[in-house]
Amino acid sequence: MPPAASPLAYVPFVSVENMMRLVHHFGLETVLLELTEAVEADYRRWDSFEKAPRVASHSREGVIELMPTSDGEVYSFKYVNGHPSNTAKGFQTVTAFGVLARVDTGYPLMLTEMTLLTALRTAATSAMAARHLAPSDAKVMAMIGNGAQAEFQALAMKAVIGIEEVRLYDVDPDATAKTARNLVHSGLRVVSCKAPEEAIESARIITTCTADKAFATILTDNMVGSGIHINAIGGDCPGKTELHRDILARAATFVEFEPQTRIEGEIQQMGADYPVTEFRQFLNGEAEGRRDAAQITLFDSVGFAIEDFSALRYIHGKLEGTDFFQPIDMLADPDDPRDLYGMLLRAAA
Amino acid sequence: MPPAASPLAYVPFVSVENMMRLVHHFGLETVLLELTEAVEADYRRWDSFEKAPRVASHSREGVIELMPTSDGEVYSFKYVNGHPSNTAKGFQTVTAFGVLARVDTGYPLMLTEMTLLTALRTAATSAMAARHLAPSDAKVMAMIGNGAQAEFQALAMKAVIGIEEVRLYDVDPDATAKTARNLVHSGLRVVSCKAPEEAIESARIITTCTADKAFATILTDNMVGSGIHINAIGGDCPGKTELHRDILARAATFVEFEPQTRIEGEIQQMGADYPVTEFRQFLNGEAEGRRDAAQITLFDSVGFAIEDFSALRYIHGKLEGTDFFQPIDMLADPDDPRDLYGMLLRAAA
Repeated sequence: MPPAASPLAYVPFVSVENMMRLVHHFGLETVLLELTEAVEADYRRWDSFEKAPRVASHSREGVIELMPTSDGEVYSFKYVNGHPSNTAKGFQTVTAFGVLARVDTGYPLMLTEMTLLTALRTAATSAMAARHLAPSDAKVMAMIGNGAQAEFQALAMKAVIGIEEVRLYDVDPDATAKTARNLVHSGLRVVSCKAPEEAIESARIITTCTADKAFATILTDNMVGSGIHINAIGGDCPGKTELHRDILARAATFVEFEPQTRIEGEIQQMGADYPVTEFRQFLNGEAEGRRDAAQITLFDSVGFAIEDFSALRYIHGKLEGTDFFQPIDMLADPDDPRDLYGMLLRAAA
Repeated sequence: MPPAASPLAYVPFVSVENMMRLVHHFGLETVLLELTEAVEADYRRWDSFEKAPRVASHSREGVIELMPTSDGEVYSFKYVNGHPSNTAKGFQTVTAFGVLARVDTGYPLMLTEMTLLTALRTAATSAMAARHLAPSDAKVMAMIGNGAQAEFQALAMKAVIGIEEVRLYDVDPDATAKTARNLVHSGLRVVSCKAPEEAIESARIITTCTADKAFATILTDNMVGSGIHINAIGGDCPGKTELHRDILARAATFVEFEPQTRIEGEIQQMGADYPVTEFRQFLNGEAEGRRDAAQITLFDSVGFAIEDFSALRYIHGKLEGTDFFQPIDMLADPDDPRDLYGMLLRAAA
């Protein structure tokens, strides 16, 4: 049926297929690098954003969340689920999609898949923090947890701060083998390890990204020497942490948005008086970053709506002149706004 | 490009075009009647629902809202904007879309336009209230405000409670002419009126649905006699009302969800001690409905997430075996859930 709708009725939709085409067209490392810049630019204008709490609907099996934000000109939200038991059923643990909209009219500008885009923005956010906080000679990263995030993390660190080697460890050797295989042509030296102690050997950056929804201790205190940057992204909901609290006690800890991280991050293990720095405070010169080469810095990352906003804006900016989207007829747009019924009536003809 | 994705990647999308086809296929009055039953069935199991507050992002020009709810098995949310100044720009004041999802996996079941569907569910909700609260001999409805909602309201009252005549009034005669023209083959007697007093003559139901974002007095006290049901749907946000407070003082007032209506409804004009009945209390036998033929009943309707949930579930139930939807590739679904990167890598080939 030929679309009877006006141009205003159509919203560009970026499917998974088109998101993959877009990423390959511009190049994954370029996208990760540009996305890092986009996230950092938005962090630098932190006060422009509405920081609404995410709206969570919890169930026995998991959670469905809506994460909205706005800078007064553009509005975005992400729908994201987290269902640890999904893997056993052959479903993804996390899927996501998102919408960008104009604040002045409320009209959506774009609908897009965000499962892939969330992996990209999470890696870009990690790289943004690491390029400011990691020791300047960081060429080796340990990657503890070799799930869906692992390759994106490694490639963002390569693209943004120039790491040369990634050392993989996972409780499941198949996950490590999968990650090593995927990275074989990445330009990174890939070392598959049989123990976390082996993975962190010589690493100046340790990224933890495991999936257990439980208080776990992926890193114990005696494993972590001085002069390390820890990028902790797996502890991201209440009851889920990865680091022993003694590490936190020694570290200078940076977070995205303190009220949210106190509930969801590694620091939920610590008292309310445990000192943290919001990363944007550092970016805006209100707080110190890494003090010296021997310090342990920790980026306790749980994911924040502004990062999704940055990612959605970035992708939207890439669409013009491309065919990486399809217009979908999502908005009723009668010729006369008051004549919605007339539009319906005429459609019958 | 042939879709490389698995069946799990696809979400049924109901476009505006397909929503119109669906409505015509089943018949508008049938849809309105069945939707009324669907909304009422969900109101009767009110306690099954998560009643989260809507999440609003306000700007100078309007508001963008997310309205989520869940019954523990199915989750829904609606995105809806309200921008009174849009009409002058040639945009719709209100546009909406929505998603239905499974709670156990978090996977979306359907994405659909909701501008049209919201008009349908609003009319169905009005009809649900009127069939229980209006005087039993109500055959005539006055329709004050002849905008986008008017025809849907009239036809739902015809389908559900059997009104025979609708009396139209709007400050803009063009709006009245548009509504009268649209209803010419509806089976209703349509009377276009030059004054609100003329419109409410002989009407047992008065529906007010005007669009001004202001405290307005569409109905004054001396206009409203006894034995009337008022269906007030235009007073639906802070600072926007349609009825003089003296009418409220005389009426038995029914609302959807008291905490929300106190802020958004007609009753925002009244003190916190102004008595109201939640409609579901009446449905469940916890509160009285209309007491006698002479009473004024008022349904102070602002729209509630459960009504959207009912509408989404109803439409989803109608899709099976039809082509009123198109599958869109919205969810990344790699063969191995941990191998999101591998999926991206293979897409390059």
